[in-house]
Amino acid sequence: MISRIAILGTGLLGTSVGLALRAAGFKGAITGWNRSPEHGQVALKMGAIDSIAADPLEAARASQVSVLAVPIYATLDFMEKLAGVLGSENMVTDVGSTKRIICESASRLYNIPERAAFLPGHPMAGKERGGAALADANLFRGAVWLFTDDTAAERSPHAGELVKSWREWVAAMGSKIIDLDPVRHDELVAWVSHLPQFTATALSALLDEEVGGAPELKDVGGRALREMTRLGASPYSMWRDIAHTNTEAVERALLALEQRLTRLRENLRTPELRDEFEEANRFRQE
Amino acid sequence: MISRIAILGTGLLGTSVGLALRAAGFKGAITGWNRSPEHGQVALKMGAIDSIAADPLEAARASQVSVLAVPIYATLDFMEKLAGVLGSENMVTDVGSTKRIICESASRLYNIPERAAFLPGHPMAGKERGGAALADANLFRGAVWLFTDDTAAERSPHAGELVKSWREWVAAMGSKIIDLDPVRHDELVAWVSHLPQFTATALSALLDEEVGGAPELKDVGGRALREMTRLGASPYSMWRDIAHTNTEAVERALLALEQRLTRLRENLRTPELRDEFEEANRFRQE
Repeated sequence: MISRIAILGTGLLGTSVGLALRAAGFKGAITGWNRSPEHGQVALKMGAIDSIAADPLEAARASQVSVLAVPIYATLDFMEKLAGVLGSENMVTDVGSTKRIICESASRLYNIPERAAFLPGHPMAGKERGGAALADANLFRGAVWLFTDDTAAERSPHAGELVKSWREWVAAMGSKIIDLDPVRHDELVAWVSHLPQFTATALSALLDEEVGGAPELKDVGGRALREMTRLGASPYSMWRDIAHTNTEAVERALLALEQRLTRLRENLRTPELRDEFEEANRFRQE
Repeated sequence: MISRIAILGTGLLGTSVGLALRAAGFKGAITGWNRSPEHGQVALKMGAIDSIAADPLEAARASQVSVLAVPIYATLDFMEKLAGVLGSENMVTDVGSTKRIICESASRLYNIPERAAFLPGHPMAGKERGGAALADANLFRGAVWLFTDDTAAERSPHAGELVKSWREWVAAMGSKIIDLDPVRHDELVAWVSHLPQFTATALSALLDEEVGGAPELKDVGGRALREMTRLGASPYSMWRDIAHTNTEAVERALLALEQRLTRLRENLRTPELRDEFEEANRFRQE
């Protein structure tokens, strides 16, 4: 039943959503908007969108579903602006990496009488570098796509239909849907997503200081080093918003890793090192 | 000029050396020995060796080049035993991950009149799981192969020929050779190899504790989590020897990472986070 979609933000994720919708057989209209027009042009040329919108609010008003694919603070900004111009015939969803603050904003501005429906989403897919040029119709294939609130669906039959239909398109893009409470979401991704990222950033920054001056020596590390530092290329612009909106959970995870590394360091020559390897092996077996 | 090679230890690395030699066109005899005979049988069936040796010392005596492909303490053991039975017509090389202790043993037992030549080597290639069954003729292709002492070559024209020939076979297996001082080697690999491994081990063990009970939630982490914990599967049996023979350098590297993570944690909401991301980005640009 969805025939008109607006993608606000045609970077890596937004452009990939357009490509994946087309690959999954979506025949309706997809319009796109981007802060820097060049990325919009790239998305248009790749076939992820079929028109460039001059005004994001107009584009959202003319669409049944708007996908916010911008950093978190920009998502919150759009949520404020769109809430005033959209009505109960519209649905908004997002792809932001933290969900507590977005869900707070959604329950204040959306999912109430006369207002648009809001379905908070988070596809666990990405690349260490952004931009429309790296977009990929298969980016979401095999990935988990989290939703953290289904009150939108319960509000009205119309909203329920839009939400159901969007979830079907997400499944058609190849993703596995998991529903989670937003607070539990933010705690979980602090461990399985944000901690790995900040660890790679700290390790890469440290290695830049230690061996960055001798590029030929980086080859020495081989595949293991490349993998453990790949996320070191991730942009501050995206991760700043995550650090700001999930600070306490990320602090807890980082502190726990610092303590774990200390324990490992103090036990390099004791039998406790075996326990540490065995517990790590267990994580990879399951 | 090398026509008879003995591979002592037909696990992942030893078996891969046999396969890579054959793929590079080595036509001579390759005999193999392994502590657990099943691995020897696997290497034989894969074509990495063409006979199984009952006695490793006999096998080494009958070969021009012996490749020690066992953990570091087992390598030091073999070095003691072989020094007494080999002579100036033989060369021994190894694939151990730390080199200072092996080079100390080599200068005491080898590379002196009447004794065999010893060429300490370290291919920067491997997999997170060991065993002959995972061996690969292309394991060393594109990898760096470090050598940490060339005094063997200078000792006699015969030793010089064997060393030169072995280095040519290593290049023929597709590796890029780099020569390094053994102390500098151990410091460097502490940063670019041992630190990434112990970080992955600590991260995997911590995540096993935090989310290991809910296996479905590990999918949530996606590719980033899989990469950052892949080395969590590495075996204690190999890494214990590395932790014991490069303790001080690994301690320094781990302490530096702990401090870096603390700084990042304390700056999640300050502009210093940008500096950390920018330095990490730099490491991946070069």
